Amino acid sequence: MKIKNVCILGAGTLGTRVALQSALSGYQVRIYDIFPTALEKSKKTMEKIIGQLAKNTGLEEAAGFNAINSIIFTDSPANAVKDADIINESVLEDIKVKNEVWSLFGQIAPEKTIFTTNTSFLLPSMFAEISGRPEKFCALHFHDVFFAKGVDIMPHAGTDPGLIPILEDFGRSLEQVPVIIKKENHGYLFNSILGAILSSAGRLLANDVAEVEAIDKSYMVNFRVDIGPFGMMDTIGLDTVWHVTKNQNDPISQNFAKLLKNYVDAGKLGEKTGEGFYSYPKPRYKAPDFLG
Amino acid sequence: MKIKNVCILGAGTLGTRVALQSALSGYQVRIYDIFPTALEKSKKTMEKIIGQLAKNTGLEEAAGFNAINSIIFTDSPANAVKDADIINESVLEDIKVKNEVWSLFGQIAPEKTIFTTNTSFLLPSMFAEISGRPEKFCALHFHDVFFAKGVDIMPHAGTDPGLIPILEDFGRSLEQVPVIIKKENHGYLFNSILGAILSSAGRLLANDVAEVEAIDKSYMVNFRVDIGPFGMMDTIGLDTVWHVTKNQNDPISQNFAKLLKNYVDAGKLGEKTGEGFYSYPKPRYKAPDFLG
Repeated sequence: MKIKNVCILGAGTLGTRVALQSALSGYQVRIYDIFPTALEKSKKTMEKIIGQLAKNTGLEEAAGFNAINSIIFTDSPANAVKDADIINESVLEDIKVKNEVWSLFGQIAPEKTIFTTNTSFLLPSMFAEISGRPEKFCALHFHDVFFAKGVDIMPHAGTDPGLIPILEDFGRSLEQVPVIIKKENHGYLFNSILGAILSSAGRLLANDVAEVEAIDKSYMVNFRVDIGPFGMMDTIGLDTVWHVTKNQNDPISQNFAKLLKNYVDAGKLGEKTGEGFYSYPKPRYKAPDFLG
Repeated sequence: MKIKNVCILGAGTLGTRVALQSALSGYQVRIYDIFPTALEKSKKTMEKIIGQLAKNTGLEEAAGFNAINSIIFTDSPANAVKDADIINESVLEDIKVKNEVWSLFGQIAPEKTIFTTNTSFLLPSMFAEISGRPEKFCALHFHDVFFAKGVDIMPHAGTDPGLIPILEDFGRSLEQVPVIIKKENHGYLFNSILGAILSSAGRLLANDVAEVEAIDKSYMVNFRVDIGPFGMMDTIGLDTVWHVTKNQNDPISQNFAKLLKNYVDAGKLGEKTGEGFYSYPKPRYKAPDFLG
């Protein structure tokens, strides 16, 4: 099958970016949100992204604005899903909300429509049945679209295997690198590895083997990258890192969870509050002499 | 104290590189090996490195060869340690060999000499006593010197804290990023984190969540780097990775160890044998279309 019409459910950060990239890649895009204000904000965000892309990648601004103007922004489910070949859902990461959305769109979507969810931490099998077409249901998970260009394709046990190559092609057409996950795994592949990095760094700190900056330096200088584990934690948010860490059972991780809890209780959640393991907007690890 | 004279013990891969960088940084260097052939080979390797540096970093070739010519290559312990301000030991990673070397040099080194070991996996406390001057004994662990420019400074419980800033300055003078480890940890900081990455990737594979290439793609595209966990394992050597993995107790790591053992038994040790998770000299992950 040939995908032409793309329906994006949820006009938040990720939905906005997938919609924009789809329009830039020549698809007819409709983006749905229950809140008209979210749709207005989404359009403004797209304009901002086009400005950045024009500056950084040489994209022609006029082409970018044409793409935005080709997108249909709607709070009408029936309008959103009209003639859709594929739905990519990015609504709130809440199982109840996602169930409501998939129950509704499962009833009103054209028969041909492929159903994909952009969920970050839940699993496609959690919504596949309620959508009414589990065999056409798969996770299609974008990261950042314009910066980190990977797209995870993760079927559940009942997904028609014929769907995978179609989603691979669709991912490539959006200039993403398709990553096939063979069976359901919370957080796909990357979160498993990222979690292992953050956890091992946290254990070194909690075990008093080294300070935050030494651990980040070691990582940055050896991998030749510009951010280390504690910089990443500040970016993710220490509240989120704490939520994950407190479920790890070994005593050293528990010590790290306690240390994180102190930051959270003090309102130091990382970059978003201006204070975490580093102080923002100018964290030490970004200073020119940090690796000097 | 001011370090002027540097004594390198062991003219293998790392000793050769530390000696060369020390000479390039203006130190008087003596490099010792028990085998005269190792010293000859070391000098040839230095010449090769200078050629590469001249090509890639704009180092003046003449200055590089002057540095090599200033180095004293010797198989005489007494000559090697003459007037040494610091010893950096890179002999075989074998506790018995290291004990013999430190016992000998502890007796013949000048009183002022600082003792440092470049051990990768052992701990400084294992040789500190036999050297006769535990308070002047510390790990000073280089990675690659010219590419990965980190140097780990890891004291044991009996190291004089006053040694740390001296070693930091010395590391910086060799254009390395000093990384302070507060207490002994096998593999310093980086190996803990690297091990966590490789282990989590191995678990995804052993658990049949995804294929080798998908896991590497996910890592490479999200971290924007040019090698993923299985590429790294091939570079390290699958025999080494197997040795580490088989000591991990959880059932999924044990499954990954079995999978690695099959590679080892088949003589597929990674890059060094031409075959591992990838085929060399042109592994798939280096192909221009790998992330396409």
